[in-house]
Formats: sequence, structure tokens, C-alpha cells
Amino acid sequence: MMQDWYFDDLLPGQRFSTPGMTVSEAMILDFARVYDPQPFHIDIEAARGTEFGGLIASGFHTLSLSFSLFFRLGVLGRANLGSPGMEELRWLHPLRPGDTIRVEAEVVAAKASQSRPDRGVVTMRHDTFNQHGELILTVNCLHRLKRRQA
Amino acid sequence: MMQDWYFDDLLPGQRFSTPGMTVSEAMILDFARVYDPQPFHIDIEAARGTEFGGLIASGFHTLSLSFSLFFRLGVLGRANLGSPGMEELRWLHPLRPGDTIRVEAEVVAAKASQSRPDRGVVTMRHDTFNQHGELILTVNCLHRLKRRQA
Repeated sequence: MMQDWYFDDLLPGQRFSTPGMTVSEAMILDFARVYDPQPFHIDIEAARGTEFGGLIASGFHTLSLSFSLFFRLGVLGRANLGSPGMEELRWLHPLRPGDTIRVEAEVVAAKASQSRPDRGVVTMRHDTFNQHGELILTVNCLHRLKRRQA
Repeated sequence: MMQDWYFDDLLPGQRFSTPGMTVSEAMILDFARVYDPQPFHIDIEAARGTEFGGLIASGFHTLSLSFSLFFRLGVLGRANLGSPGMEELRWLHPLRPGDTIRVEAEVVAAKASQSRPDRGVVTMRHDTFNQHGELILTVNCLHRLKRRQA
């Protein structure tokens, strides 16, 4: 994997695939206790009686884990100036203890800044799949990146 | 604060305000080391040399902290069936160590399900402010909630 991708290196249609990561019950409980302490995220017994039929990860956890998988690919390096935002996030299936997730990312748009010629914003669709091939999370993430110097 | 808000209890225009929460350097580092280990999130020295001029929280951390503040209000209780997704998230200003954040949430839409009469989806705008009154994060969050039984 090339280091230090710049705005100019990311073209619509480019795709990136991450390795898988298995998510443990402890990881789910640890995150949710702090950020999202709902019964179906922190209480195995109570979760059985909910619509979900058992413990599921906080959606914010699924999102953060998905980003961590993508980040480890090294696409966001020295050229990354942070994200302006995200669009159209959908949580489509729960993430359960023992699930193995992986992320497929694709550049869907790239827009150079009009006001600042040293940067641009790339839109990437991030799709998170579980071990059954089910799409559990999809989101369009904006990434602000430096341009290569001319 | 009333317990167990249902779909029918949340009407467009209703607003909720959280108390403040001061975010420490340790909190920022602990989250970012696991989920978003970029230099401006995990390395105080390196962060000084970036556009941000110092350590800032991962955007996923700002989002998760904001939700945790909202959650503690108790609006999402037994009637909550989870979130289908989020729209139009914007990270507008960085969250820095020592900042105190609070959230203002407002119901912007409520739509009963056509196919399942026992539930509906409420759209809430969640705005996160820092101690200077700057809007640092805004997002429209969908909440799927049970209806009160007729």
C-alpha cells in the first residue's frame, strides 16, 4: 500500500478492502457502558427480551470500529486534514458478539476546493460487512486532503 | 424528565438540553488510540505541527460523547427500537482537551410506519456546542420508537 495518499491520488471508482476483525462481547460491553448504555448494548439478559434477541453493539461502536479498520489501510496519512462530515449513514443489521467485520471503501466523488487551491474533499462510501456477507453499515464519509504540490 | 417517551410523545419543535461535560486529554487519547490513531488525535507534540495547532478529539469520539449526553436525558427508554441511521453530520469545530460540551436536540420530523402500526421514526437534530457557544457538531439522527398502544 502506497504511503501518503493525496487528494490527487484518489479517483472515483477506486476501491479499498480491509482485513476482517472479530468483535468480542467485552469490546461491545466496554464501549456501550461509556457511550451508549442501553439494555440491548450492556445487559446480556435484558437484551434477550428485546427485538434484537440478544446483545448488539452500539451503532456508534460499529461506526468507530469500521473507521479503525479503514484507517489501518494507510490511505489517510500525512495529507489528511480531517473530515468535514458524513452523509446517509444507515445501520442495516446489528453487530453481535463474535461477528467478524470488514470494510469495503470506494471513492464516489472528488472535489477540489475553489477557495483553497492546496486541498480538496473526497467522498468515500464505506460499507461494513459481517461474516455472512450482510451489509451492516453504509455511510458516505467526506475526507479533506492536501493536494500534491504542482 | 418523563420516563419512557414513545413515538407519539415526540412532536416536531420539541427541544431537549443536556448538562455540560468537560472532556479531558486522557479521554481524547484513550478513544483515539483504539479507533482513530491519527497524529492530531494521539500525539500532543505532533499535533502542534498540524493545521489544528494541538490535540483534538476524533470526530467519532465527539459524536459518541454527544450521544451519551443526550442519552442520559432519558428520552430514549423502553420505547427505543434502535436507530436506522443518521443524515448530514458536520464536524464544524474541533473538540479540544478541557472543552466543555453540551447538546441541544430538537425533533424535526416524526413519521409513523406504514407497514408496522406499532412504531414510527423520529428525526432529531442534535447540535453539540462548546463552552464558547460554538456549534462544533450537528447531525440529524433517526430514532425508531414504539407507539403507545391505542
